[in-house]
Amino acid sequence: MAIITLTTDFGEKDYFVGAVKGAIYSELKEVRIVDISHSVSPFHISEAAYIIKNAYNSFPKGSIHIIGIDSEFTPENKHLAVLLDDHYFICANNGILSLLASEIKPEKVVEINIHDAIETNFPVLDVFVKVACHLARGGTLEVIGKNISEIKYLKQFEPAINSEKNQIVGHVLYIDNYGNVVTNISRKLFDHVGKGRNYLISARMVTFPKIYEAYSDWINFEVEKENRGEEDGKKLALFNSAGYIELAIYKSNPSTVGSASTLFGLEHRDTVTIKFEEK
Amino acid sequence: MAIITLTTDFGEKDYFVGAVKGAIYSELKEVRIVDISHSVSPFHISEAAYIIKNAYNSFPKGSIHIIGIDSEFTPENKHLAVLLDDHYFICANNGILSLLASEIKPEKVVEINIHDAIETNFPVLDVFVKVACHLARGGTLEVIGKNISEIKYLKQFEPAINSEKNQIVGHVLYIDNYGNVVTNISRKLFDHVGKGRNYLISARMVTFPKIYEAYSDWINFEVEKENRGEEDGKKLALFNSAGYIELAIYKSNPSTVGSASTLFGLEHRDTVTIKFEEK
Amino acid sequence: MAIITLTTDFGEKDYFVGAVKGAIYSELKEVRIVDISHSVSPFHISEAAYIIKNAYNSFPKGSIHIIGIDSEFTPENKHLAVLLDDHYFICANNGILSLLASEIKPEKVVEINIHDAIETNFPVLDVFVKVACHLARGGTLEVIGKNISEIKYLKQFEPAINSEKNQIVGHVLYIDNYGNVVTNISRKLFDHVGKGRNYLISARMVTFPKIYEAYSDWINFEVEKENRGEEDGKKLALFNSAGYIELAIYKSNPSTVGSASTLFGLEHRDTVTIKFEEK
Repeated sequence: MAIITLTTDFGEKDYFVGAVKGAIYSELKEVRIVDISHSVSPFHISEAAYIIKNAYNSFPKGSIHIIGIDSEFTPENKHLAVLLDDHYFICANNGILSLLASEIKPEKVVEINIHDAIETNFPVLDVFVKVACHLARGGTLEVIGKNISEIKYLKQFEPAINSEKNQIVGHVLYIDNYGNVVTNISRKLFDHVGKGRNYLISARMVTFPKIYEAYSDWINFEVEKENRGEEDGKKLALFNSAGYIELAIYKSNPSTVGSASTLFGLEHRDTVTIKFEEK
Repeated sequence: MAIITLTTDFGEKDYFVGAVKGAIYSELKEVRIVDISHSVSPFHISEAAYIIKNAYNSFPKGSIHIIGIDSEFTPENKHLAVLLDDHYFICANNGILSLLASEIKPEKVVEINIHDAIETNFPVLDVFVKVACHLARGGTLEVIGKNISEIKYLKQFEPAINSEKNQIVGHVLYIDNYGNVVTNISRKLFDHVGKGRNYLISARMVTFPKIYEAYSDWINFEVEKENRGEEDGKKLALFNSAGYIELAIYKSNPSTVGSASTLFGLEHRDTVTIKFEEK
Repeated sequence: MAIITLTTDFGEKDYFVGAVKGAIYSELKEVRIVDISHSVSPFHISEAAYIIKNAYNSFPKGSIHIIGIDSEFTPENKHLAVLLDDHYFICANNGILSLLASEIKPEKVVEINIHDAIETNFPVLDVFVKVACHLARGGTLEVIGKNISEIKYLKQFEPAINSEKNQIVGHVLYIDNYGNVVTNISRKLFDHVGKGRNYLISARMVTFPKIYEAYSDWINFEVEKENRGEEDGKKLALFNSAGYIELAIYKSNPSTVGSASTLFGLEHRDTVTIKFEEK
């Protein structure tokens, strides 16, 4: 049974998501619709990319992923259907594909050209659903679009490495549900530049001399809990499950004690610096 | 496979939605449950009506729609099961049906009378689920209720047209996820009264001389993007995908730059006026 | 078809829930995944317990319930798979099971021991999904864990009864979507201690001389609505659908007129007292 996932900024309240699901079920009797997220911040392409990038590859190969972010059809915002890493993605050509495809080259990209027959101001419902159902029935990309070789590139704030190779300047990529701050510095980049040297991470007023492997990695479990002092609220850096450096508060609750984001004063795009020791 | 949709004000956190789904799966092995929305404002009947009205007809004919808003069973709030536009609706007789049925006459309305055997203070779980599963198995309305000819009518603030036929006074019907302001003035009414004349829309301190067909309809794409100036944040009126006049901010984000609702100071039920030019 | 439910504090936005669903569908072609809640307050074990406890038993026997709260694997936070009331639960040994099992003894508890092969900082994805799919395929608990006889006990603030047996001191267990205040005093305990005597409930500055059976139970429907005065906003106590005493506002809306929680100034863990009359 085909799987169609949905990642949008439609929110949890409006009729949009319901209408899209109804339209899919009206075209396909047998299909599995899976919500990835509808709470992407409005028009926030890099947030959507972070979410879909870390969710899609848990799904079976051949899954079809609809991305409903900034998808109004205009001369400057055409619609794409893409085969990448054996998954299908349907999205606007607004730069999101350049983020998804930063490490894996798409096998095929077509610009959707079934719009002639469709007048719409709800493109996810009227265009993306049609394309998704076509693919779910085993249809090919060529039938619904024409091959293109260039996609819109979104200028990302990639981490910068200085010429002495002893500093990485990255930025805040994402704030998660716990208020933890995800940077755009990957473990791979960190290892590549750091080569095992000591380091200090700094972001605004906070610094971190160590990156842990897990939230509770810093706790010495050989000491009994009663003798370890207060643990909740401790600040730490770790490699998160998406493979990025994350600045976190141990067991934070954004609505009570505060979160890494609020306590460190860090927001999307703020700078995070790692300085490596001379060897 | 039968489809049962859910539209409620239960929210995303409580156990209510989970319990309802469990109860349906306990009665029916083969059924598709689809969430339309659980984030309707508490007891907000017109909001629920707007959402379900714009979502239900994407679904296949014969779908069953549970509406869990203000559904406590009392002598003044009986329960209804309705066939309308080839869809089934199960809801309380609290006026919501009059909003759903404002344009399409229901084919059949029954007052549910299976309550004798049921003591409940969770009617969606104990009554609506039973009725929905009965209908999903192909049961008839007559078995679970008695025909009634009158339903509770909810006094809506319908748009008013003055005697000179040069003015429509409507109101704010709904604020969507982007903070855009949906009025209760439909394209149909606008065309009928306006007859192609010039007009000015006003709502509090903001005015709109034109209604666009889409969010980016006002942009002149023949001028290159670099030469068009700042576009995000521009105010505009348009016909939205539900067919109503909407007052919007181009690419608004309620949590950062603000939204139409906050920037225009418009809330549910506030007045929106369209004045037409003399011809 | 097996049913796997999800109750987590992952929130509605992040990639976590999508990734977990994708992983389940990658292992099992035929399975039904049902969201119970992803909006549990971060690390809030008793909130999660209240939600899952009141949702799980609507589901068919044999359903598998993943609880993703505070589930990082550490020497002090092992993972459990449990058979209780003919349902399977997969959770961390952080005390939540003691809340679920407060009235019903588990039939079998195993400590999951498949971790050797798994390195993870996303245990719900990497461990709980594997265990759930194993159970969904008909596997036994013994294959994925070893029997244990003791689980971590979470010190709950159980209601206290004084020695004269004329007073119950409970606390606020949960605030629901409507802002209504659920106490941890059950109908069963109330009946057992009260034995039909008159009583007064007090919490901060508010008192309630009566517990109703339903939200509108206090309304005299024999008087016509026009003659009954304003009803919305009335305060009342009732036995809620989960069987607990709830302090409520009739048709409250937390975001407009306020809710029981805000109007009474009551939060999680605040004290609620019932004094019974001498007989």
